[in-house]
Amino acid sequence: MKTHLDCLPCFLKQALTAARFVTDDEARQATILRQVLREAAQMDLNAPPPVMGYKIHKALREATGDPDPYKEAKRRFNALALRLLPEVRKKIQAAADPWDAATRVAIAANVIDFAIRGRIQEESVYELIDQFLEMPLHGDPKLLHQAIENAQSILFLTDNAGEIVFDRLLLEQMPLDRVTVAVKGGPVINDATMEDAREAGLPELVRVIDNGADAPGTLLPFCSPEFREYFEGVDLIIAKGQANYESLSDTERPVFFLLKIKCPVVAADTGLSMGSLALLRTAATDILLTSAARGPATQPL
Amino acid sequence: MKTHLDCLPCFLKQALTAARFVTDDEARQATILRQVLREAAQMDLNAPPPVMGYKIHKALREATGDPDPYKEAKRRFNALALRLLPEVRKKIQAAADPWDAATRVAIAANVIDFAIRGRIQEESVYELIDQFLEMPLHGDPKLLHQAIENAQSILFLTDNAGEIVFDRLLLEQMPLDRVTVAVKGGPVINDATMEDAREAGLPELVRVIDNGADAPGTLLPFCSPEFREYFEGVDLIIAKGQANYESLSDTERPVFFLLKIKCPVVAADTGLSMGSLALLRTAATDILLTSAARGPATQPL
Repeated sequence: MKTHLDCLPCFLKQALTAARFVTDDEARQATILRQVLREAAQMDLNAPPPVMGYKIHKALREATGDPDPYKEAKRRFNALALRLLPEVRKKIQAAADPWDAATRVAIAANVIDFAIRGRIQEESVYELIDQFLEMPLHGDPKLLHQAIENAQSILFLTDNAGEIVFDRLLLEQMPLDRVTVAVKGGPVINDATMEDAREAGLPELVRVIDNGADAPGTLLPFCSPEFREYFEGVDLIIAKGQANYESLSDTERPVFFLLKIKCPVVAADTGLSMGSLALLRTAATDILLTSAARGPATQPL
Repeated sequence: MKTHLDCLPCFLKQALTAARFVTDDEARQATILRQVLREAAQMDLNAPPPVMGYKIHKALREATGDPDPYKEAKRRFNALALRLLPEVRKKIQAAADPWDAATRVAIAANVIDFAIRGRIQEESVYELIDQFLEMPLHGDPKLLHQAIENAQSILFLTDNAGEIVFDRLLLEQMPLDRVTVAVKGGPVINDATMEDAREAGLPELVRVIDNGADAPGTLLPFCSPEFREYFEGVDLIIAKGQANYESLSDTERPVFFLLKIKCPVVAADTGLSMGSLALLRTAATDILLTSAARGPATQPL
C-alpha cells in the first residue's frame, strides 16, 4: 500500500503521541517532531506507511537515548496476556469450532497496539477476552485452515507484544513442524521481538526467527537477506496487524492478513469500516485453496 | 498565544484540507504539503499559530497560481448573509436587550470559517439565525458596552467574509464616529478584505481600513506601519475570531475578543470547551470599565 496524503498529518500525530509516551521533556518532544517533519517533507509517497513509522521511532530512540522505550509496556502486556491465557484457552477448547475461535482471538488481540492510539487500556484486553467469540469477523477462517493444510511451509509474521501470547493459541492448532514464526529484529514501538517470543513461550513450541529489521510491519528492503530468502520461498505467509497489511498488501506472495482496521486510509483501501476485525488474503493464496474449498475470495485484494 | 506541539499535526491537516479545497491535482496537493512540512520543521514555536496559517495559505496560492482561491466562497457567504440580514436585524430589534442580541449574533457568525474545517455548510448559517438568541455565551456583553462608552477611539478587527455582514448589526449599535473597522490587506483563506467590507456595505457606515497583511489574525510584524500605529494608540480594540485571539491574547493593549472556540488548544488556553461562544478580554480593558460596572473579569486572561 502506498502512503496517502492523509497519512502525513497522522504521522505527526503518532509522533507527538509517541514522543509524549517516551519523555515529559517538551524540548525533546519538539526535537522529535521537527525531525519527523523534515523526514516527512522528503518522504517517497510510493513507499508504504510503515517506512515513516520506522523513521518516527528511530528519531524517538535517538532523541531519548533509550534503545527500547516501550520495554516496560511490552513486559506489562505480555504478563497480562499470560495471566489470561488459561481462561482463553478453555473458551477455545469449549467452542463449537476451536479453529474459528482461535483465529478470532488472534485477530481481536491486535487491539494491543501502541502505534496509533499511543496508550491502550488494560480494559480493552479484558473486553477482548469477554467478547472475542461474538465479535463480527470479515473473512472466513475455514479458508485459512485449508491453505495451511495445503502448505508445506508456513511463515507466521507476528505484530505486537501481548498479542503474541494470544497468537500462541492459534499456533497451537497448526502443524508446528511446518511453521516458522518471525518477530522483529530490534525494538520498534511495542512490536514483538525475540524477548517477547520467549516470554510467550513460543521457542519451546515452534521455530522462531527474527526478520533483521527494527521497522514496523515487514519492509523487505529493511529485513535480513536470510529472512527475505525465506519469505520469497515459503508456501504460505500469515501476517498479523495493520502495519503488515500496509507493507505487504501489494505482494505477489500468498499472504493471509489477520488484522484490526485502525485507520480511515486502511478502511478505504480494504473497503471495511474502522474497528473491523478482518481476515484478508492476496490473490496468490488461490493456489492453496483446493477446488472443493475454493469459493469466491472473501475479500479480494 | 504560543504555538503548541498539538498545533503541528493540525497545521498539516488544515493544509491538506485547504489543498484539496483549491485543487484536485494530487501532485499539487503533495507539493503544498511538502512545503508546509518544511516550514513547520523550522517553525518558531514562540510565534502564535496564525504565522503557520500565513505560510500554509502562501504555499497554497503559490502552488495553484491563484491569488485568491477562496474568492467564490467569500462571495457566496457574503450573499447568503446579506439575504438573511433583514430577518436577523428584526430579531435583534425585537429582542429584550438588542445590544446583547447583536453581540451574540456577531460571535455566533464566527462559525463561517474555512480555516479549520475546510468547508462549512450553508445549513450552519441557517442554524445560527434560528438559534443565536438562545446560544449560551461565556462573558458579559454589558462589559463590552461599558468599555465602548468609555473609549474615544475603537478599532474593530474583522475575521471572515460572510461573518462581516453580521458584524454590521453590532456596528450599527456602536458610536460609529469613534469606530474604525479593519480588514485584511490581502486575501488569506476566507478572511474579509476591503472587497468584502464593500459587499457588506460597511464603508457607507463607518471608516474602514486594511491592516496591510495577508495573514490570518492580526500579526503585528506583518501589518503596515500605519495600522500598527493606530493599533498602539487606540483606546479599545474589538477582535473577532480565534486567529485574532491566538495573535493578540498576550498583548498589553485593551482587547475584547469575540470568538467561537474551534480547537482543543484554544479551549485549553481559555479554559472553555470546544464550540463555546466567548467574549473574553485582556487585563488592560479594566481601565475602560467604570467602578460602577467593573466587577470581577468574566474571563481573566
